[in-house]
Amino acid sequence: MATPSASQPVDLRGVAVVGASGYGGLQTLRLLQDHPHLNVTFLGGERSSGKRWKELVPFLPLPGDLTVQRPDPEAIAAAADLAVLSLPNGLASTLVPALLERGVRVVDLSADYRYRSLAQWKEVYGGEARQYPRSDDDLCLEAVYGLVEWEEEAIRKARLVAAPGCFPTASLLALLPFLQQGLIEGSGIIIDAKTGASGGGRAAKEHLLLAEAGEAVAPYGVVGHRHTSEIEQMASRARGHAIQLQFTPHLMPMVRGLLATVYGRLRDPGLTAEDCTTLLQAAYRHSPSVEVLPVGTYPSTKWVRQTNRALLSVQVDPRTGQLIVMSAIDNLIKGQAGQGVQCLNLMAGLPAATGLPLLPFYP
Amino acid sequence: MATPSASQPVDLRGVAVVGASGYGGLQTLRLLQDHPHLNVTFLGGERSSGKRWKELVPFLPLPGDLTVQRPDPEAIAAAADLAVLSLPNGLASTLVPALLERGVRVVDLSADYRYRSLAQWKEVYGGEARQYPRSDDDLCLEAVYGLVEWEEEAIRKARLVAAPGCFPTASLLALLPFLQQGLIEGSGIIIDAKTGASGGGRAAKEHLLLAEAGEAVAPYGVVGHRHTSEIEQMASRARGHAIQLQFTPHLMPMVRGLLATVYGRLRDPGLTAEDCTTLLQAAYRHSPSVEVLPVGTYPSTKWVRQTNRALLSVQVDPRTGQLIVMSAIDNLIKGQAGQGVQCLNLMAGLPAATGLPLLPFYP
Amino acid sequence: MATPSASQPVDLRGVAVVGASGYGGLQTLRLLQDHPHLNVTFLGGERSSGKRWKELVPFLPLPGDLTVQRPDPEAIAAAADLAVLSLPNGLASTLVPALLERGVRVVDLSADYRYRSLAQWKEVYGGEARQYPRSDDDLCLEAVYGLVEWEEEAIRKARLVAAPGCFPTASLLALLPFLQQGLIEGSGIIIDAKTGASGGGRAAKEHLLLAEAGEAVAPYGVVGHRHTSEIEQMASRARGHAIQLQFTPHLMPMVRGLLATVYGRLRDPGLTAEDCTTLLQAAYRHSPSVEVLPVGTYPSTKWVRQTNRALLSVQVDPRTGQLIVMSAIDNLIKGQAGQGVQCLNLMAGLPAATGLPLLPFYP
Amino acid sequence: MATPSASQPVDLRGVAVVGASGYGGLQTLRLLQDHPHLNVTFLGGERSSGKRWKELVPFLPLPGDLTVQRPDPEAIAAAADLAVLSLPNGLASTLVPALLERGVRVVDLSADYRYRSLAQWKEVYGGEARQYPRSDDDLCLEAVYGLVEWEEEAIRKARLVAAPGCFPTASLLALLPFLQQGLIEGSGIIIDAKTGASGGGRAAKEHLLLAEAGEAVAPYGVVGHRHTSEIEQMASRARGHAIQLQFTPHLMPMVRGLLATVYGRLRDPGLTAEDCTTLLQAAYRHSPSVEVLPVGTYPSTKWVRQTNRALLSVQVDPRTGQLIVMSAIDNLIKGQAGQGVQCLNLMAGLPAATGLPLLPFYP
Repeated sequence: MATPSASQPVDLRGVAVVGASGYGGLQTLRLLQDHPHLNVTFLGGERSSGKRWKELVPFLPLPGDLTVQRPDPEAIAAAADLAVLSLPNGLASTLVPALLERGVRVVDLSADYRYRSLAQWKEVYGGEARQYPRSDDDLCLEAVYGLVEWEEEAIRKARLVAAPGCFPTASLLALLPFLQQGLIEGSGIIIDAKTGASGGGRAAKEHLLLAEAGEAVAPYGVVGHRHTSEIEQMASRARGHAIQLQFTPHLMPMVRGLLATVYGRLRDPGLTAEDCTTLLQAAYRHSPSVEVLPVGTYPSTKWVRQTNRALLSVQVDPRTGQLIVMSAIDNLIKGQAGQGVQCLNLMAGLPAATGLPLLPFYP
Repeated sequence: MATPSASQPVDLRGVAVVGASGYGGLQTLRLLQDHPHLNVTFLGGERSSGKRWKELVPFLPLPGDLTVQRPDPEAIAAAADLAVLSLPNGLASTLVPALLERGVRVVDLSADYRYRSLAQWKEVYGGEARQYPRSDDDLCLEAVYGLVEWEEEAIRKARLVAAPGCFPTASLLALLPFLQQGLIEGSGIIIDAKTGASGGGRAAKEHLLLAEAGEAVAPYGVVGHRHTSEIEQMASRARGHAIQLQFTPHLMPMVRGLLATVYGRLRDPGLTAEDCTTLLQAAYRHSPSVEVLPVGTYPSTKWVRQTNRALLSVQVDPRTGQLIVMSAIDNLIKGQAGQGVQCLNLMAGLPAATGLPLLPFYP
Repeated sequence: MATPSASQPVDLRGVAVVGASGYGGLQTLRLLQDHPHLNVTFLGGERSSGKRWKELVPFLPLPGDLTVQRPDPEAIAAAADLAVLSLPNGLASTLVPALLERGVRVVDLSADYRYRSLAQWKEVYGGEARQYPRSDDDLCLEAVYGLVEWEEEAIRKARLVAAPGCFPTASLLALLPFLQQGLIEGSGIIIDAKTGASGGGRAAKEHLLLAEAGEAVAPYGVVGHRHTSEIEQMASRARGHAIQLQFTPHLMPMVRGLLATVYGRLRDPGLTAEDCTTLLQAAYRHSPSVEVLPVGTYPSTKWVRQTNRALLSVQVDPRTGQLIVMSAIDNLIKGQAGQGVQCLNLMAGLPAATGLPLLPFYP
Repeated sequence: MATPSASQPVDLRGVAVVGASGYGGLQTLRLLQDHPHLNVTFLGGERSSGKRWKELVPFLPLPGDLTVQRPDPEAIAAAADLAVLSLPNGLASTLVPALLERGVRVVDLSADYRYRSLAQWKEVYGGEARQYPRSDDDLCLEAVYGLVEWEEEAIRKARLVAAPGCFPTASLLALLPFLQQGLIEGSGIIIDAKTGASGGGRAAKEHLLLAEAGEAVAPYGVVGHRHTSEIEQMASRARGHAIQLQFTPHLMPMVRGLLATVYGRLRDPGLTAEDCTTLLQAAYRHSPSVEVLPVGTYPSTKWVRQTNRALLSVQVDPRTGQLIVMSAIDNLIKGQAGQGVQCLNLMAGLPAATGLPLLPFYP
């Protein structure tokens, strides 16, 4: 691979979006519509190949009336030097090696390259591993975990970026500063997370019907949810030793938005909410996509709806010694496609937030 | 006070409902419509006194076309021997003594008599304490905390029952069996709770508008929420020494329903989810309003919508030693009016669940 | 078939529910749980046969821990003398003849027997007609249209009742009194209807996902919706000559509830809203499941949520001569399963509203 | 008044937003954040004057940390040459004359200048007329009705623009082409409209609480709604003689979005949906904010959520001769603040859609 020209920004770069009609693909396309330097030059999709975009998605017209094509690596490489893959877990790994070989740099929105160890992926994503036999251990090692605010330099130079899951994004933005500074205990961490129904994707599933998920709140994946190990991998790295934590997702009766309420025990019980807020602000002072709220102001998912922003707020209970960090994101933007575009930006030599919406239309 | 005739059930008892047009009052009236032995004989309300019920609430016709009356203790005592008060905090305490003097037994849905110590109430409900000067320490001591499954005998004989708050109900049903048996640590307990917007009452408030609270999830009252101390009072009693815990409520974009996700550290790390489920089932085997789900089935608030049932489920993470108890209720029924009717039932010598809905209309 | 013993009520009648895990089946089962005289003695289902109900539907326990069985006519006839079929269109017609032959009286919730002409059914339900070849013209003629308030006597004696669709129920309750009395023109009638997402059933479909249908309002089936012809059949009968009208359904972002706003031109422009309200009240004075609101009070679907009640309200615009009738029902109860139970009641010699909820739990 | 310099576009124009914390004001501020040529230089508000914006609205940071000021005409004129007023009906009329005198050109989002006749305003807005005595008949006559696609030239030169109401915007965009061409009858027009709860504004009202309006659909303002006369004024002008029509709004359980389903009788029954679609497309071919969908594709409010776009679709029923035009907008953008910004754009000599979002983030 030639060294990617990460340092020189470009006027206009072609981007391929593969898996265009799922939510990750749709958001990516929409975000790139407003982008000053990235341009969609290839629409890839298996099921809808051959169809004109206009007929598939009448509500999101794209310039040039593109037609969806089969995701052929040659064709992608001919049209674009950056690609975003928004495919079911396992499927991306069948396409990535061929793209990299052809010099296309890839942001993968699936879980396929989020673990440094392929063996761990096979354990956690057992069903997918049976369906898609893989031996790309080297790519797992090479891939950069696309948590932009923590991996900016590596992403800039990466050939392959694994965009984090929505829950890990919200959780790690809240946890990492405290773990890295050693301010909370490594054990006893609890992440109680709440997500809108679009987090389950666009494929029709009974439990995600409005009639089922409307007017309902319920936990799922208790103890065993796959994002637990993804969060632990990064948390352990930040802390310097293995961390095991509790992660419990809940399904909310809303379209989009994700809130993680993160609990950890302070090692120094004298720390105040103000101290911890200052720490967070310092950690993210160069990150326009992360905003830390003043003590006592708690983030609503509505405040980040359809933006790439994460809103954090800290509270401390001096009676119990608990630190509580609340972290709100839009699950489909900062939690998925927006973070993908941040990665594209860095790979194209641009500032991470280029072209991304940061302010909500309230309400 | 004459000993209340708690032991003989009656054919039909008159009940006064005071504060009839708020959600607590409306639910109480609706539940009593289906009740075989309790009959609404007095509708009390300050603002709407003199108005015919039919015009106030066209969607919930009551037999006999009652008129709302000022909540005069004499008039109440003439019409009913049981009263449910659904009034703003502080206001109930101005009415209760006069009712008790006249032999009317009271279920109070407010927080006024939930603490055994009036001083604590004044501290926690400072604003209300300034508005309503109180010196009824004796009634605070006498009042029975109406958590039906744990106070059945005391409620039967009580003159005054303080119905628990919605969050304490869901939380304590989940916690008490484990605290009482000493199976979890007294410290480090975390309750992450989620409630529908009707929990904020019927009075118009900007943040509870559909336009504000719709498509939004947000924490509130972090660290300082009033229900923390209410939960701690009962948890401490069950454990035998003072317990301090973390309680974080969140507002959900739905009308009704409440889920508490309760985290505690197991003292014996060898306990399994099955063990803990068996324990819970034993604790509630005589309680038709509490159902314990099999391991791996997690409660949706939709499964208890418009019922008086609490659904509990337990999970254990052997890696972290955490116990996770999930507890779903309808915040306006088991969390408020339904529990109030359970108390009325016991006071009238009836089984607690008499006349109450236990099965949902799904979806 | 011997004349059904419609006149003598019974203590307890066995009912078979076939297609138990769809919304129609679930509602029927739930409604029968509270019924004093009807008892579920057979649970039929193709896909889930052999499974214990408790495991299939943990949130709706049935007494006796029934097992779902293949819908074998012999087995049904052995267990029940009444059956409710909640099956996809076309499928019911494969089961009904065998049940009738064995003396089981049937309420069919599908569209299979709603038209007096099988040819018309084949035209309107063309896809189903290709999948299920039918020649039961005689049963189409024999079947009674189960709009309870208008066909009470015929339903009482019927072997086979076709429960109306949800839209026709709300629309016809609003229209028929005015058509029958000749108070509105036969042409120019417009029905603009709004339904909750449960009206689309429990099978997973992309457009009914919460992520798609939440925060969205959209028309569908404009001009061509199948319920148009069903409404027209009954409207024409009431008027005495063929009526063609406009019916436009819209999908609402809510779980359940249906509102039909019906517009018609008054033939006598001097008629007032009060006159028309009086007429409606007279038409439904013996129908506890239909309530007519006073002029100026407009029905919310929330006022009938989880009840079998239809709420009607009339307004007149003297400037334009338009009559506007608003009709709110719960699409799954009065619009489906509740009306089915009304039919069962009549067939069992009971008053139509026996055992059915008429008052809402508000909010 | 000096002739407004409407013809020369400018690099950056100062805009005052008065009534900044209501929904109209919030949307205007948000839209102007992304605007290349318009810049907020004054934040006006009565209740919140003296407060820093940042504390009032933590979720929508503005550059420069502005402080809200009392809406003093001198101060406004010193800071801006364009003003958007987002005030309660009646209040705007107390500020407008002073602004115009000082050379500030005004876009008023209220109803105060929507009628050419002050007398009619006083009749329709009787309560406001009693509270705010007015005699500015001349300004009512001078004001331009800000329906951008139909009044572009007049808006360009206007000193005072009355932005249309949300219902009139959706309804008139659908109706005017057909009325102007004389393709539908002038009588018998029916507009059945559906709006999200944000249409009721941000002031706390009981019936707009999530607990009340959630899971509910209901009509309101039947026959008498104020927007009826606003629609009729423009419809009559387009047709050339007085038109009276039926307008029925309904409240939907969602935050934002508005759909008008418009029914009219075709004068030529041979016209097809394709013909009518062609006509609509021609009418709006120069209007980037209006898109006409192909026949058979019906607009969802979600497709225009948080955009300034109106989506139209036409259907024809050859049996009944009815034309059905469906019109979806975002009630707060094309229905309010976005249309206001379109007017500002024209007044500043810019293309109407400058800086406005036209594509949705789906879902």
